[in-house]
Amino acid sequence: MPKLKMSLLTIIGGLTLLSSSAYAGVDAEVSYILNTLLFLIGGFLVMWMAAGFAMLESGLVTSKSVSTIAAKNIGLYSIAGLMFWLVGYNLAYGIPEGGYIGTFLPWSDASSVDTGYSDGSDWFFQMVFCATVCSIVSGTLAERIKIWPFFLFCAILAGIIYPIEMGWQWGGGHLAAAGFSDFAGSTLVHSAGAAAALAGAILLGPRLGRFTETGEAAPMQPFASSSIPLATLGVFILWMGWFGFNGGSQLAMGSFEDSSAVATIFINTNLAACAGVMACAAVSRLVTGKTDVIMMLNGALGGLVAITAEPLAPSPFLAIIIGAIGGIIVFFGTGLLLKLKIDDVVGAIPVHGFAGIFGTLVVPLTNSSASFGAQLTGIIWVNLFVFIVAFAVWYLMKITMGIRISEEAEKLGTDKAEVGVMAYSIRD
Amino acid sequence: MPKLKMSLLTIIGGLTLLSSSAYAGVDAEVSYILNTLLFLIGGFLVMWMAAGFAMLESGLVTSKSVSTIAAKNIGLYSIAGLMFWLVGYNLAYGIPEGGYIGTFLPWSDASSVDTGYSDGSDWFFQMVFCATVCSIVSGTLAERIKIWPFFLFCAILAGIIYPIEMGWQWGGGHLAAAGFSDFAGSTLVHSAGAAAALAGAILLGPRLGRFTETGEAAPMQPFASSSIPLATLGVFILWMGWFGFNGGSQLAMGSFEDSSAVATIFINTNLAACAGVMACAAVSRLVTGKTDVIMMLNGALGGLVAITAEPLAPSPFLAIIIGAIGGIIVFFGTGLLLKLKIDDVVGAIPVHGFAGIFGTLVVPLTNSSASFGAQLTGIIWVNLFVFIVAFAVWYLMKITMGIRISEEAEKLGTDKAEVGVMAYSIRD
Amino acid sequence: MPKLKMSLLTIIGGLTLLSSSAYAGVDAEVSYILNTLLFLIGGFLVMWMAAGFAMLESGLVTSKSVSTIAAKNIGLYSIAGLMFWLVGYNLAYGIPEGGYIGTFLPWSDASSVDTGYSDGSDWFFQMVFCATVCSIVSGTLAERIKIWPFFLFCAILAGIIYPIEMGWQWGGGHLAAAGFSDFAGSTLVHSAGAAAALAGAILLGPRLGRFTETGEAAPMQPFASSSIPLATLGVFILWMGWFGFNGGSQLAMGSFEDSSAVATIFINTNLAACAGVMACAAVSRLVTGKTDVIMMLNGALGGLVAITAEPLAPSPFLAIIIGAIGGIIVFFGTGLLLKLKIDDVVGAIPVHGFAGIFGTLVVPLTNSSASFGAQLTGIIWVNLFVFIVAFAVWYLMKITMGIRISEEAEKLGTDKAEVGVMAYSIRD
Repeated sequence: MPKLKMSLLTIIGGLTLLSSSAYAGVDAEVSYILNTLLFLIGGFLVMWMAAGFAMLESGLVTSKSVSTIAAKNIGLYSIAGLMFWLVGYNLAYGIPEGGYIGTFLPWSDASSVDTGYSDGSDWFFQMVFCATVCSIVSGTLAERIKIWPFFLFCAILAGIIYPIEMGWQWGGGHLAAAGFSDFAGSTLVHSAGAAAALAGAILLGPRLGRFTETGEAAPMQPFASSSIPLATLGVFILWMGWFGFNGGSQLAMGSFEDSSAVATIFINTNLAACAGVMACAAVSRLVTGKTDVIMMLNGALGGLVAITAEPLAPSPFLAIIIGAIGGIIVFFGTGLLLKLKIDDVVGAIPVHGFAGIFGTLVVPLTNSSASFGAQLTGIIWVNLFVFIVAFAVWYLMKITMGIRISEEAEKLGTDKAEVGVMAYSIRD
Repeated sequence: MPKLKMSLLTIIGGLTLLSSSAYAGVDAEVSYILNTLLFLIGGFLVMWMAAGFAMLESGLVTSKSVSTIAAKNIGLYSIAGLMFWLVGYNLAYGIPEGGYIGTFLPWSDASSVDTGYSDGSDWFFQMVFCATVCSIVSGTLAERIKIWPFFLFCAILAGIIYPIEMGWQWGGGHLAAAGFSDFAGSTLVHSAGAAAALAGAILLGPRLGRFTETGEAAPMQPFASSSIPLATLGVFILWMGWFGFNGGSQLAMGSFEDSSAVATIFINTNLAACAGVMACAAVSRLVTGKTDVIMMLNGALGGLVAITAEPLAPSPFLAIIIGAIGGIIVFFGTGLLLKLKIDDVVGAIPVHGFAGIFGTLVVPLTNSSASFGAQLTGIIWVNLFVFIVAFAVWYLMKITMGIRISEEAEKLGTDKAEVGVMAYSIRD
Repeated sequence: MPKLKMSLLTIIGGLTLLSSSAYAGVDAEVSYILNTLLFLIGGFLVMWMAAGFAMLESGLVTSKSVSTIAAKNIGLYSIAGLMFWLVGYNLAYGIPEGGYIGTFLPWSDASSVDTGYSDGSDWFFQMVFCATVCSIVSGTLAERIKIWPFFLFCAILAGIIYPIEMGWQWGGGHLAAAGFSDFAGSTLVHSAGAAAALAGAILLGPRLGRFTETGEAAPMQPFASSSIPLATLGVFILWMGWFGFNGGSQLAMGSFEDSSAVATIFINTNLAACAGVMACAAVSRLVTGKTDVIMMLNGALGGLVAITAEPLAPSPFLAIIIGAIGGIIVFFGTGLLLKLKIDDVVGAIPVHGFAGIFGTLVVPLTNSSASFGAQLTGIIWVNLFVFIVAFAVWYLMKITMGIRISEEAEKLGTDKAEVGVMAYSIRD
């Protein structure tokens, strides 16, 4: 180090005796910046998941409902963003310790170096999670729900239902006090979304002609997916976004421990998804004789959802096992819903609900600070609360404004009936 | 800290007395790295916007021009990159203080820790902005412009026209001296692109059969968009990229203040887009009876463009208002262009031009260092300059090489006539 | 700095005399975090390239093989991830200095601040490279290979073949000792993938009806690409991901030098791709009369592959030259393969093989520490090894389980025959 330079620094900095070594902790402001950066990167990756859901659902619905799905997906993300600022954030994070509900005040920023990260970056990161919950609902109810009642439901889900239950855990409410453990939201986000979707699917009923009198599913043909490559793109987008979803949920990156933890989370998240894909590929090949690509796609998501409750503690090997079981649950869960005559257009309930509950339940196997009792408590509280409130909201909307499009509109397709724009116009 | 370690560091570093605490500022090299990182992350996100424009335009044009749009979009991004290195950067940033034009020298790197960020990362970040200007032009002129004259225009726009006017502000030229304020380029980038597109659209004329004798627009059918899901994907990509566009325009992240500012920018950018979407959803539903998904998509962009002139100063509430008005401007601006019989295939002029001017005008409402007079000055200088020069360039090309494909080629479609590759070949 | 704060820090840290100034090096823990962050960002960008390959290949194959390509691409990424954890990483990095092969142990994490970055982040980054090699193979063999034999080959390629040859260089093996230079893998990744693809293509033979008796290629029509916009999206994704591929290969970001180097790499990577696009646009226009968009897309990739061997040392001007030649090589290489009656469905061999070898060969022109002799040695070792082993594996699979679908299945299309899901179902 040149002497002149050292002298200059000595003058600038004064006789400061500092401890910013690797072993004494990172400088507080640098740590603040790095933690904020994790939220921002994690945030734009999870925002990107909104596009993933849009593509997955666009690809899996029939071609006469694709414009509608597009409108619903960009709309729900927008509504979630607006509502989470207006009421959601403070309902979740304004909660008293061990409590049940926060305040209805709009969010505002209160950052200082001492808070350890930018308040705004945290808001952004939490907001995109909120949007994810609504995205899950969108796919299940596709092709038959009216757009604006759906938007109204999203406003309530993103603004009130999700923030309340999420605050029970991440806001330091009663589930956190009870020892519940859900790292990035297998239950708080994913199965919550699936519970809201299930309530809607029951009240809405299946698409016309989806199930026959005898209880079996109609042949797939009239309900064939419009575009497998778009659905595939959607899953790759979601997979990429999940690095933000789980990695960002470490909530800090400004130290050796935290940045190493984020790397571990990336690995486990990735391996679980890989295992979900290949488990579904193998099972579908063995059971049906075909290597069903839709099952592989939903298997990836099943693996991702399953590992989300605890992506840090498992060894790579256990992450693979958890992901593989998550995928298999999706495969058989999809069949179960068909038997129950519940029409879940994109398979969101098996993916986000069944695999999410499974992932939450097995946290104690790898994280010694969790217990099966607390996990069960959390799963029941969250899913029951969301299902009941969502059911009530859907029901109220059904008997007032109506939630299902007319039979005529359904035969025409929601793209013609509600959006007025056909999804595809491809001529040779 | 172990003694051995300390001794080693003492030997390596000498008896340096440093002040890199949170309250005395971040270490200069760390700050350099973080600032550079912001440019690199912002840069790849804005680069990604090129894909967003490509998908948006591919989705909105008719299916006989999609391969051409793909060729134009990957071509324009390439040309912009090459030209911005060859002449653009130094035309903008080699400008004398308060001046009008820089030098025509190629860019070269001159980084040191004292410059505060890597020169190369800044070049990369500025280059992708330059490509955005060309992307805006591409959509307006689709389906009837010849490819190579379009490429030539892009070279001039990216290499000369945009860098000159951008340097007036961001290079420290006369608009900066006049107190003009345009944080990330509502005017310098977006309305500039729209002005160049407008000049081209006037000289090029509308697509065959787009407007009837009586002045009304022909029914949409023959001009139906080829793929709404791709257009939706395009908007999600652009939205994601905009976090880099606006967030990166903070130009630094290596301090408490800067990293917090980037977070605020993310929030405002996102809320403005959300508001633009829902404003257009509501207005289109009220005016036309349908929830027009294309309007929602362009509404997102209108909100994004409007907030781009000042994404840091507004409160979240004001960001929502600005975004909503941006969206509504797009809705009515689109109708206005139809009345004027200007054929803007994807609606780029209302989105980037009208919403961009609006966003620039309202900066003084939230940023007290801006004035309406200076804003108006900047808007007029930039838009007039770009429109006039672009008009002259388009005109010279029109009377020499020609800019419009033959009537026969237009009926055949540019994909067959110019690219020789059909966009879709889908068989059951 | 407030006195209280200083006192506290003095107590916490002891009387540590540190040198973390810009000129004496960044604090070790901060550097660790930043290096880890580079791997994580680079890693998710390269992971994203798997989506790019999936879209590129989905777009370029005929519409009766798109679901299969989707299944193969998400499957191969999953297999690569699982295998690279199970055996790949330690085969490559457990290699003795100057040696030929590592150990067959699963990877495990061994990070400390002194390792300079999180071991896990490095695993993640290396794993996604491994997936890239398999992606390259997928496109060449499309439309006629059986899914599960392809998956088995990927397991061997990702788990054994690629890690062994990659370890020769990046694991410090015999090629590193010989002075071979391949910054981010023009040879180790790209031409290796192409060599494996070529072996498969020879043993598999061309698609039915692809070449006539007289040796000329059949007219394109029956083999028309299903979706140019998806292929374009794929290339934009790959381009974006390449910033992670090349930028992350700097392997560190925690210093002035490293972060500046990453910026330089971004610039050169981008300019090479730009030049590849425009070189192919010009050449295709001059040679065929049409501005062939598929050639522009593959030209981008040719430029990217060519610069990958040395994206740091070249000046921007030389990066442009290297990229342009890479693009032109793709153009003429594609014609050469047709003459040789080798059916490479997406052009992966010219892109990754020919341009990769070219890029590796010209490293000594810009990097004075490289020599042509060492480059040639590395190219021959890697390509011969991969080709021979891959050929043997493909051959063994061919004579045992079979690698090609039946003639009947090929006429039907692999989507119907193997996956049971049609890619597109679009109705007006």
